[in-house]
Amino acid sequence: MRIPILKLHDYLLITIQWELDDQTALQFQEDLLDKIHETGAKGIVIDLTSVDMIDSFIAKVLGDVVNMSNLMGAKVVLTGIQPAVAITLIDLGISMRTVPTALDLEQGLDKLQQELGS
Amino acid sequence: MRIPILKLHDYLLITIQWELDDQTALQFQEDLLDKIHETGAKGIVIDLTSVDMIDSFIAKVLGDVVNMSNLMGAKVVLTGIQPAVAITLIDLGISMRTVPTALDLEQGLDKLQQELGS
Repeated sequence: MRIPILKLHDYLLITIQWELDDQTALQFQEDLLDKIHETGAKGIVIDLTSVDMIDSFIAKVLGDVVNMSNLMGAKVVLTGIQPAVAITLIDLGISMRTVPTALDLEQGLDKLQQELGS
Repeated sequence: MRIPILKLHDYLLITIQWELDDQTALQFQEDLLDKIHETGAKGIVIDLTSVDMIDSFIAKVLGDVVNMSNLMGAKVVLTGIQPAVAITLIDLGISMRTVPTALDLEQGLDKLQQELGS
């Protein structure tokens, strides 16, 4: 199972609409980095609205994806973080302090456009 | 397995990035109609770029989804139809004559905005 990645102009949009298992999360990490390389995307919105909770492995993969994308020159905005997901991320010390967040996909895109100054 | 449906302003965006099996296609039909009802979306772009071929059942479901969405008041644009998919649709007599199509997601969104006059 793979998570679809939508390309829209300079952005990649991802909505995760089910609980991630370890294999899917790693596949997603690989697919996203490939897609950044392939499209030259400048910004990424990852929407987690439908994810009710995450375990420590998925939280780590998510933190890694953000850092790796930033390294490749793409800005990441996370949207729709649910209470339990926020708790897990903070409890595990996954540093998302520098990651912009927003309520939903639309606001995430707005934020991305602000951050990228376009 | 479910196909994620992204809501962006008045539009729903769907990208199908693997071959559909019968169950997934029917689940998608149900999910999409529910989402139209829930969000009041005016336009839908279904991107088929990664679908290399479809069988007669999936072709019928796809035609049905378009007609059902139109009935509910949402305009559908299909994008990225591959040669083999075009052949199957025409061979099966699935009437897509009134359905706007476009090359990719960006052009599909532009077309939708034209059609909806916004």
